[in-house]
Amino acid sequence: MPDKLNDVVAELALANRILGNEGVLDAFGHVSARHPGDPGRYLLPRARSPGLVEPADILEFTLDSEPVKPPKVHMYAERVIHGCIYQARPDVMAICHHHAPAIMPFAIAGKPIVPVFHLGAAGGEDMPFWDQHDEFGATNLLVVKQEEGHSLARALGNHPAVLMNRHGATVVGGNIKELVSRSIFMCQNAVYQLQALMLGTPDRLHHGEVELAGAISRMPNVVTRTWEYWSARVGMPAARGAKKTARTAPRARSKAKKRR
Amino acid sequence: MPDKLNDVVAELALANRILGNEGVLDAFGHVSARHPGDPGRYLLPRARSPGLVEPADILEFTLDSEPVKPPKVHMYAERVIHGCIYQARPDVMAICHHHAPAIMPFAIAGKPIVPVFHLGAAGGEDMPFWDQHDEFGATNLLVVKQEEGHSLARALGNHPAVLMNRHGATVVGGNIKELVSRSIFMCQNAVYQLQALMLGTPDRLHHGEVELAGAISRMPNVVTRTWEYWSARVGMPAARGAKKTARTAPRARSKAKKRR
Amino acid sequence: MPDKLNDVVAELALANRILGNEGVLDAFGHVSARHPGDPGRYLLPRARSPGLVEPADILEFTLDSEPVKPPKVHMYAERVIHGCIYQARPDVMAICHHHAPAIMPFAIAGKPIVPVFHLGAAGGEDMPFWDQHDEFGATNLLVVKQEEGHSLARALGNHPAVLMNRHGATVVGGNIKELVSRSIFMCQNAVYQLQALMLGTPDRLHHGEVELAGAISRMPNVVTRTWEYWSARVGMPAARGAKKTARTAPRARSKAKKRR
Amino acid sequence: MPDKLNDVVAELALANRILGNEGVLDAFGHVSARHPGDPGRYLLPRARSPGLVEPADILEFTLDSEPVKPPKVHMYAERVIHGCIYQARPDVMAICHHHAPAIMPFAIAGKPIVPVFHLGAAGGEDMPFWDQHDEFGATNLLVVKQEEGHSLARALGNHPAVLMNRHGATVVGGNIKELVSRSIFMCQNAVYQLQALMLGTPDRLHHGEVELAGAISRMPNVVTRTWEYWSARVGMPAARGAKKTARTAPRARSKAKKRR
Repeated sequence: MPDKLNDVVAELALANRILGNEGVLDAFGHVSARHPGDPGRYLLPRARSPGLVEPADILEFTLDSEPVKPPKVHMYAERVIHGCIYQARPDVMAICHHHAPAIMPFAIAGKPIVPVFHLGAAGGEDMPFWDQHDEFGATNLLVVKQEEGHSLARALGNHPAVLMNRHGATVVGGNIKELVSRSIFMCQNAVYQLQALMLGTPDRLHHGEVELAGAISRMPNVVTRTWEYWSARVGMPAARGAKKTARTAPRARSKAKKRR
Repeated sequence: MPDKLNDVVAELALANRILGNEGVLDAFGHVSARHPGDPGRYLLPRARSPGLVEPADILEFTLDSEPVKPPKVHMYAERVIHGCIYQARPDVMAICHHHAPAIMPFAIAGKPIVPVFHLGAAGGEDMPFWDQHDEFGATNLLVVKQEEGHSLARALGNHPAVLMNRHGATVVGGNIKELVSRSIFMCQNAVYQLQALMLGTPDRLHHGEVELAGAISRMPNVVTRTWEYWSARVGMPAARGAKKTARTAPRARSKAKKRR
Repeated sequence: MPDKLNDVVAELALANRILGNEGVLDAFGHVSARHPGDPGRYLLPRARSPGLVEPADILEFTLDSEPVKPPKVHMYAERVIHGCIYQARPDVMAICHHHAPAIMPFAIAGKPIVPVFHLGAAGGEDMPFWDQHDEFGATNLLVVKQEEGHSLARALGNHPAVLMNRHGATVVGGNIKELVSRSIFMCQNAVYQLQALMLGTPDRLHHGEVELAGAISRMPNVVTRTWEYWSARVGMPAARGAKKTARTAPRARSKAKKRR
Repeated sequence: MPDKLNDVVAELALANRILGNEGVLDAFGHVSARHPGDPGRYLLPRARSPGLVEPADILEFTLDSEPVKPPKVHMYAERVIHGCIYQARPDVMAICHHHAPAIMPFAIAGKPIVPVFHLGAAGGEDMPFWDQHDEFGATNLLVVKQEEGHSLARALGNHPAVLMNRHGATVVGGNIKELVSRSIFMCQNAVYQLQALMLGTPDRLHHGEVELAGAISRMPNVVTRTWEYWSARVGMPAARGAKKTARTAPRARSKAKKRR
């Protein structure tokens, strides 16, 4: 079990760095994973920019978003996003909250992101919107109260992602790698949708295509390929070999660098 | 002959890295070359992101897209794109399938890319469209069946490229270097065409200009110059000197780095 | 006191490099801080591109923008922007004048930047405009005369920023870190606002939200997090530990590099 | 005199690399300077991508664009652009022909670039257009014949730059550094003008402002600052100290790197 936990912690740290490096996250945003051995707990870094996160930064929380051990470091103010969604969605094993430039125009204009290319189907067909002001009036738009987190989780429903007006988006996944690819493909989809609109009318995927193409990012072949690519771009070996790498760290790492 | 094969394999690996580095390919897309000694076979990397491809990753396939030696590694699911086009087009010696951000708005809005600057003429005058849904109904949009590959090859016809609705594009070339420059110039052309539309009406090349300017990327002078440039940007010496370089690798490579 | 001055000088140099690296400043623009021990003086680099500024480049000026010690190096022609605003706004401790690509379309089209996402509230609700031509007729648009500086300061009023037609913007802060984050968030807000307009009508923050969200960038938790992130991206340790770092420079720096 | 020539050659090589690095030139484009000792000759690199040009690549040509010494290397096909303009414009000491992405939408839509911010005034008030097809019918759009070069020079007239339909632009300067800054500022101006148009009506500089602001890029203070900045970004010391650098190369270069 501790081995399994170590693997998830390493993969989560790498997911943070990948999403930081691929332009989904910057100084802000956060990525969590459900505890592999206890569905009533989740793992989330201390309050640090995702691109800088290391395994040692990752803390353990109850689903009420209380730290299991009182930490001496700052915690993300918005961690209820994670706790409330893990409570509402037993199928969700990883969550990312972000303000990616790609999706902000949609979150600000209140226009839905719809799947316009095969990989974009990972974001689902009818992405819901949530406006904190509707239920809570004027706030600083941070999701910090339990009732705000629960409201967001309700808006998410069974969807893979929810847009948050004048704020950003929250994306979920059945595992860390699905979350990472969904977050990246959803951003690409948003960029293409906006630019296609400048040419004419974007041609969205047919209903049946969304379901079938939505599964591409779960194909083992694709997962291996994308994870190696994104890992290489942050200068890290792909997580699959992370444990092995740890034992032979210097050589494995220098190889990863050369490979770029 | 083995020397010739080694040269093509080295050039194909470099082409993969160049197209990955210049923003035509990312985690996805693939680039192949026809076997230099056997027109009934083609060379294609194992399922790996193009920017990471090395000569050792390159496998040999029949035109039915069956591996000549059963490999122990993953293969691209969409390799029928390559096999079917090599069958239909004896003049084609290299093929690239991609989802470059530059062309996606056109593939999604269903608007033709037309040559708007001299180098963009490499993409030809009337780029055809292919919509997998027309003939095959709801799929995951990946081109994986022989009949899908043949249908795409028919849509391509004698053109240098075909746009694939809600998916991407496939580009062909008379050799690897022509393919690389055509893929890159076509992306630049698409970006300029979209932005010119925001200013007014893009002024497309006159009919006679397309034919004449389309030959620029085959001028030996231009090929040498572009190949050195793109090679330097991936930190590799230009392929022309690849064999010589292999013999004096350490020095040649460190020179290439300095040159940048 | 000298220690306090050294800290501010180090932080100001780092702020220059951060704003250069984050795309707010390029060859042009300048960033100043009020003298920590004498509100009648301010600190501003010699005429050098902000991304290259080092602590040794920072000079001391009176609020009339005269150098305290006649320097042997070039000074920024537009330093009256700083002197005149420090005179008019006792609350202002740091100032940035820039031509960031993100805000130029607004400065050129004469359209207001309004807060469209929570962090964008740092720019305030009603950003004023200043057109040098209105009061001074045809100039080279550089703000070099005292009366030009005073006019700009009047237009700024009590706002956190002012747009300058056909020129750029000037941003102020209660301290250096607030200035840096406000400058960056204002640029992000401008980009998102422009792109949201291409989708439809940008949804601006509600009145009460602007005030509340405007305070996010002053939350200690957020300041620590953003400063570490932006510092890491210029390859420098966060300024908080700058003094300690100075003592153990070689090791501290190599760590900072690894951390990236 | 040889010293003066060496200085110009070094500065021209650096100008090539700077314009390559700042996104004005890519695999294509070329930059020349008039011979400092003989106004009847000009200096131009061999056919190589500008970002890779070194002093040893620079050749000498007569104003008929014939090489003074028959070279063993490829020459740019379009060098008549340089020869014909140097013939027509005794005031011009440096020329750049480019296809920068920033200006292509204007060259393709046939819309004028007008000065919309102070630095953009370097491009002049009424940038002329030249369409090779008007006088020469269908060509490959390369300017390779003497009469094509003379026609382009006539279209340029006394302006600082000319747009070439469906091709690019040609920019001139009173010296190399003026040429470099004009080329870069003109690109920035084009980007801002296009984006301002998406917001509303770009507000162009008043007539008197163009003349005054057009001189900014010739201010010694500005030249020193921009040249240091652009040089640092290509990892080279500013040309002013180039000769000194040559003598103490290893140390001077490693300093330049640190400075970044």
